[in-house]
Amino acid sequence: MMPKVEFLFDFGSPNAYLCYKLIPEIEERTARHFDYVPVLLGGIFKLTNNRPPMEAFADVRNKLEYERLDMRRFVRQHRLIEFEWNPFFPVNTLLLMRGAVATQLDGGFDRYVSVVFRNMWENATDMGNPEVAYAALEKAGLDPDAIFNRAQSPDVKHRLMENTRQAVERGTFGVPTIFVGDEIFFGKDRLREVEQEILTQSGHPKGP
Amino acid sequence: MMPKVEFLFDFGSPNAYLCYKLIPEIEERTARHFDYVPVLLGGIFKLTNNRPPMEAFADVRNKLEYERLDMRRFVRQHRLIEFEWNPFFPVNTLLLMRGAVATQLDGGFDRYVSVVFRNMWENATDMGNPEVAYAALEKAGLDPDAIFNRAQSPDVKHRLMENTRQAVERGTFGVPTIFVGDEIFFGKDRLREVEQEILTQSGHPKGP
Repeated sequence: MMPKVEFLFDFGSPNAYLCYKLIPEIEERTARHFDYVPVLLGGIFKLTNNRPPMEAFADVRNKLEYERLDMRRFVRQHRLIEFEWNPFFPVNTLLLMRGAVATQLDGGFDRYVSVVFRNMWENATDMGNPEVAYAALEKAGLDPDAIFNRAQSPDVKHRLMENTRQAVERGTFGVPTIFVGDEIFFGKDRLREVEQEILTQSGHPKGP
Repeated sequence: MMPKVEFLFDFGSPNAYLCYKLIPEIEERTARHFDYVPVLLGGIFKLTNNRPPMEAFADVRNKLEYERLDMRRFVRQHRLIEFEWNPFFPVNTLLLMRGAVATQLDGGFDRYVSVVFRNMWENATDMGNPEVAYAALEKAGLDPDAIFNRAQSPDVKHRLMENTRQAVERGTFGVPTIFVGDEIFFGKDRLREVEQEILTQSGHPKGP
């Protein structure tokens, strides 16, 4: 019995990037492929009444300092040395996420995801600016005209909305979220449990 | 070089209980003793402008359901089968925490902590009610008269306030919080990192 594993992501989330970087190792160890599901984090927040931590905890002493420390520790522990905070954060990712859906439909998804995540969380690129994003894609050898034109088509817009709506129906309130079958896991700190759950649902008596 | 390890707790926190149950195993594996530091969670919230998750996320769809699922998974994973949600939650723990400081000064701390945590998070006792707490301590063979009288003395009250104030000065915003030397770790999900940090600071090249 092979469980479906789904990775719900938005390029604007640094923790989604951190998971993205570690997923290939989990895929290799479990011999399971992750299905990538583009969702719009802003849409999830609207549908759930949730807010980004930087906003929700803005007035809480010590909390955001700890969150930053926790992220630095994670980056160091997993040797994600290419990670760099994006100075343009928070970023409007609507066009970028529609682009992800477009490349899922038309091809080139893996390459597109790699280029966008790298520019967002390694190269400190202002990817919320459509002209800058266009240039970054072009520089990486992608076809931004084709991708962003397709991104404006009704079926792409609808798919992203539906992905987002269904994610909330299934229990999502933020990203990164990973589903292993119907089991939901939230955040960068659940990758160990995700891996264990994949193995358990795959019929392995005991995980790593 | 042996790091000081401090466990900041309030009986009212279920996650403090869950950590408390797992700390002895970590003490054994690392051959390090944890110093228990009674703090008042309500005081920390006031000093930091933080709020309990049940209040902060009351209007956020899916979030608290996930938190409950996450706790059930933790309990199952670590086989903490005695854990039972306290129906009187949230509990006013001021007297109980003063009692903890009192027993730290006068003796009987370990036994007191064990009895209070067990009644709070295994036996569903209404420990915020002084009469019920009195009866629970008496039933367990403790001397509630002596403990609760001592709990009202100025030095005990002052110590609890100072513990709480200093915790916030050092970066705390909630409980459970664990310090390994000056390194701060928040929440039930950081015990693995705590153990690794103890070993690292103790001069072990590599952890478990």
